[in-house]
Amino acid sequence: MLMHVINVNKDVLKANNELAYSNRKLLVKHGIFTMNIMGAIGSGKTTLIEEAINALKERYRIAVIAGDVVAQMDASRFEKLGVKTVAANTGRECHLDAKLIERSLANIDLKDIDILFIENVGNLICPVDYKLGEHVRVVIVSVSEGEDTVLKHPMIFRTSDLAIVNKVDISEAVSADPSKMRGDINQLNPSIPVLLTSKNDAISIDRWIEYIESHLE
Amino acid sequence: MLMHVINVNKDVLKANNELAYSNRKLLVKHGIFTMNIMGAIGSGKTTLIEEAINALKERYRIAVIAGDVVAQMDASRFEKLGVKTVAANTGRECHLDAKLIERSLANIDLKDIDILFIENVGNLICPVDYKLGEHVRVVIVSVSEGEDTVLKHPMIFRTSDLAIVNKVDISEAVSADPSKMRGDINQLNPSIPVLLTSKNDAISIDRWIEYIESHLE
Ligand SMILES: Nc1nc2c(ncn2[C@@H]2O[C@H](COP(=O)(O)OP(=O)(O)OP(=O)(O)O)[C@@H](O)[C@H]2O)c(=O)[nH]1
Ligand SMILES: Nc1nc2c(ncn2[C@@H]2O[C@H](COP(=O)(O)OP(=O)(O)OP(=O)(O)O)[C@@H](O)[C@H]2O)c(=O)[nH]1
Ligand SMILES: [Mg+2]
Ligand SMILES: [Mg+2]
Ligand SMILES: [Zn+2]
Ligand SMILES: [Zn+2]
Repeated sequence: MLMHVINVNKDVLKANNELAYSNRKLLVKHGIFTMNIMGAIGSGKTTLIEEAINALKERYRIAVIAGDVVAQMDASRFEKLGVKTVAANTGRECHLDAKLIERSLANIDLKDIDILFIENVGNLICPVDYKLGEHVRVVIVSVSEGEDTVLKHPMIFRTSDLAIVNKVDISEAVSADPSKMRGDINQLNPSIPVLLTSKNDAISIDRWIEYIESHLE
Repeated sequence: MLMHVINVNKDVLKANNELAYSNRKLLVKHGIFTMNIMGAIGSGKTTLIEEAINALKERYRIAVIAGDVVAQMDASRFEKLGVKTVAANTGRECHLDAKLIERSLANIDLKDIDILFIENVGNLICPVDYKLGEHVRVVIVSVSEGEDTVLKHPMIFRTSDLAIVNKVDISEAVSADPSKMRGDINQLNPSIPVLLTSKNDAISIDRWIEYIESHLE
């Protein structure tokens, strides 16, 4: 059984960091640009990865590691798009770790891949401490979680490389102001780029794709 | 630092269960009906507790334990309604536990309370294993998390006493069918009552209040 123990266990984090570093070396060696996509349950992680796959799959070879308590449901969505997909079941754990990524990488022919998306478990707390070997960490927050979600979860916004405020098309229906959320993010982390997106607004999705492409040769 | 350790640590759960049992005895002794309100980030936990407080506070004496990584933000919302409120900060932990509840109860004059709401940390995984001493466990899922959220988190629906599908007013905007979600819940747990609610639909809120009152003398 997987447990959440209140414990000063630096060894676990240290072992994870070392494994993350070796994952990173393997990914760099094969020239694979890797993104760790984090966000609350239902914030739009799978949707934004699907959009990126559709926009990029003709030009780049893409793989996805779909992590979740029951990972197969999201994995099937990626498989339908014809990209290499590995389902990483976390059971009762609320985050992926470097060990699960190491195991998942063993199932991917790394020579054949340019971009790897890792969809983390829906959570804004647990994934923060666990590096996976990724190049960039992306945190997605949707307006429907409530305007105060950003300030309630400072650590994940402080430690990510890109923040996305998603579902801006339903801002009014949920009485949330996306600009306020952007402001809160930049208050926590002045240097982080922030994108406001909606799957129903192609221009906003283009900016997300451009962000990814800016990291590719 | 709080850590999430993959570990067969039955002792932690056993100690938590024992403490939960002693919390429960204390609550029963004082005739306090206690609800553990669980749900993903932004699913509507605070909103539904606020609605219940507004409807019941003239007739019952109410207290709230607001648990979160940064608990003060929700606690302030409850304090504004004039009910006794304790903010229980979980730091990096993704769930409340019986120890935090024991400490919070020490700050409440139990003789003066009829109903206690405990708002758990926004999460559908971590709170499952941790009993707090509550009489009923309520799980809230909002349609904006996506129709597949129920089947992705079977354990919490199997182990709760009431399930609420919230934000049904925005079902169309997020292309989710609340009846499908209700069906999924009852497939996982045939005997659990399921309420479909919207803060913008007074009749749906009445049903939530009636559920609570059905447990009070
Ligand atoms: N209106 C609107 N709905 C969206 C948007 N992005 C995603 N959704 C919907 O939100 C729900 C959840 O989207 P997903 O992409 O599955 O979210 P997720 O973060 O992968 O969810 P989990 O993996 O379950 O944590 C689905 O019903 C999507 O169609 C958006 O920009 N606008
Ligand atoms: N449209 C709509 N919005 C709702 C409904 N219930 C809550 N909301 C909105 O959803 C957002 C989150 O609501 P909260 O009650 O703060 O959710 P929570 O579960 O307490 O959130 P955390 O404590 O941060 O996990 C707020 O902006 C609410 O106004 C509803 O029935 N319909
Ligand atoms: Mg997903
Ligand atoms: Mg809340
Ligand atoms: Zn935990
Ligand atoms: Zn964890």
